Amino acid sequence: MITHALQYRSLLRDELETVRDLMLAECANIPAPIQRPIEMLIDGGGKRLRPALVLLYAHMCGADHQKALLVAAGVEMLHTATLVHDDLIDGARIRRGVETLNFHWSPTATVLSGDTMFALAAKLIARTTDSALALRFAETLESICAGELRQMLSRDDGAVPSVEAYQQRIFAKTASLFALCAEAGPILAAQDRQAVSDAHQFGKLLGDAFQITDDVLDIMGTAESLGKPVGSDLRQGLATLPVITYSQAFPDDSRLRAVLQHEADDGTTQALIDDIRTSGAADRAMALADSQIALAGPLLNRYADTEYRRAVEEIAHFSVRRRY
Amino acid sequence: MITHALQYRSLLRDELETVRDLMLAECANIPAPIQRPIEMLIDGGGKRLRPALVLLYAHMCGADHQKALLVAAGVEMLHTATLVHDDLIDGARIRRGVETLNFHWSPTATVLSGDTMFALAAKLIARTTDSALALRFAETLESICAGELRQMLSRDDGAVPSVEAYQQRIFAKTASLFALCAEAGPILAAQDRQAVSDAHQFGKLLGDAFQITDDVLDIMGTAESLGKPVGSDLRQGLATLPVITYSQAFPDDSRLRAVLQHEADDGTTQALIDDIRTSGAADRAMALADSQIALAGPLLNRYADTEYRRAVEEIAHFSVRRRY
Repeated sequence: MITHALQYRSLLRDELETVRDLMLAECANIPAPIQRPIEMLIDGGGKRLRPALVLLYAHMCGADHQKALLVAAGVEMLHTATLVHDDLIDGARIRRGVETLNFHWSPTATVLSGDTMFALAAKLIARTTDSALALRFAETLESICAGELRQMLSRDDGAVPSVEAYQQRIFAKTASLFALCAEAGPILAAQDRQAVSDAHQFGKLLGDAFQITDDVLDIMGTAESLGKPVGSDLRQGLATLPVITYSQAFPDDSRLRAVLQHEADDGTTQALIDDIRTSGAADRAMALADSQIALAGPLLNRYADTEYRRAVEEIAHFSVRRRY
Repeated sequence: MITHALQYRSLLRDELETVRDLMLAECANIPAPIQRPIEMLIDGGGKRLRPALVLLYAHMCGADHQKALLVAAGVEMLHTATLVHDDLIDGARIRRGVETLNFHWSPTATVLSGDTMFALAAKLIARTTDSALALRFAETLESICAGELRQMLSRDDGAVPSVEAYQQRIFAKTASLFALCAEAGPILAAQDRQAVSDAHQFGKLLGDAFQITDDVLDIMGTAESLGKPVGSDLRQGLATLPVITYSQAFPDDSRLRAVLQHEADDGTTQALIDDIRTSGAADRAMALADSQIALAGPLLNRYADTEYRRAVEEIAHFSVRRRY
């Protein structure tokens, strides 16, 4: 996903700068040795897709601009906090070109750093004085935390999950926050219940497609483009959609359970990944991602055809165009 | 502190039952293997001082009763979440007669369990639809998390902190939440800024006194009454107020730095603790706790002399009467 070529980057350049400044301003009270690495993580950027989605929807709805900026900063702070926790869980050493917190600090210090960022995110949201949004934020935080916990507890049990269980997992992990991003604008603009629900659904579908594509790239990409070994989810005992679709096609492949339970040697694991790559499992997974985006499109029809709406449509289409 | 004899226990019996039910109802989506231990931790009780303070202040102010119950459940959920994190940091194995989460689960799973409970607390607060309260909740969460992080980072550096640094630490850890508990009623009742500020100050002073007394008991109590070795904070490299007042009286005692840096043998550590116990340091620490309660008293004068106000006064006096 070559996001620097996307419209939203230029369209929202100044606003995304303000979002970054709002996030950095919140970091003033983080204890000294942790403050700098967190600021670097925030400054390191990433795609800023979530704040962009907040801001574009807010423009489409005519929501209060200052409040939209606070929400954009809040959801990006929440996202950055989950990255800190994810890197700990995955044992990652580098993120956005910077050494991770868990590389230098204890697990507990790393998690407390993420917790502090959750609190900063909640403060940014609360500053909108929109109590409906504060409730949705808390529900999303619950969804993300409980989802992380559930994923951790189910890892390594050797079973390949159902597609439904996978969808629940990626809703908790990714799509719930995209849903909040999209519905924030309609909530701030006090649009009707159906508009809020449609925006929630749009964000959920986009988040689904985004996460499925990410999971497919983990199997189908190259070690160079990924910056980590191909199939690293599988190697860590996590079965994502392409692995599930492979298992549906080859239910008798006993290597799968062995790899998920860390009982296979390197040669077996690599051979299984090679077989998944050539099995067509990724195409079947991407078909689900494509269908989510197809379902999402009509949910934008209530909005006028502006540059903001076109930028949202572009993000949706590009989210599934990150092909191998 | 024999809290079962205190007025608030009978005065608020039904309300505290409702608070417990509200907390348990929030646990429905916690992943299965973690749900039961968290429910047991909630059900195990504790003194319920924080929800009691919320409810008593709410009664004094005439705040909306349903909203006060939600806040009471929210602050107790937040408090319980911090216990989960504290037990991990301290390596505790038993809490409220039940094995701790960290005794059975990995550090990361334990912290994510606490995080999920933070989110549940935020949901309970958000359900009041009071946006000022949601902001104060987020600020308090920041204070607690950043404080835990700061305490962890400063532990083991061997230096005895100043009284000011100690007061900052106990504000973050304990008094900030007591302050929120007291001010929730005036906020919900839309009382004026001064009333909110006075309640905040009352809660802060009570929290200070409560934590100082706790820290003094850790030095002056018995292993039987504490359920852990005497001086366990000091043994873990944490210097609390009685240690600080001892160090002011005996600045040349070189054993202190050695114990705080884990470089002293057991005999030296025990001898130092014995010397602190007989030095009068605890009395000087309790004098500060007593002065906080003396300052707190007049802040209640704006309220009518009801059973609710008398119960608050009783809690304040008993908080420093837990003598050795």
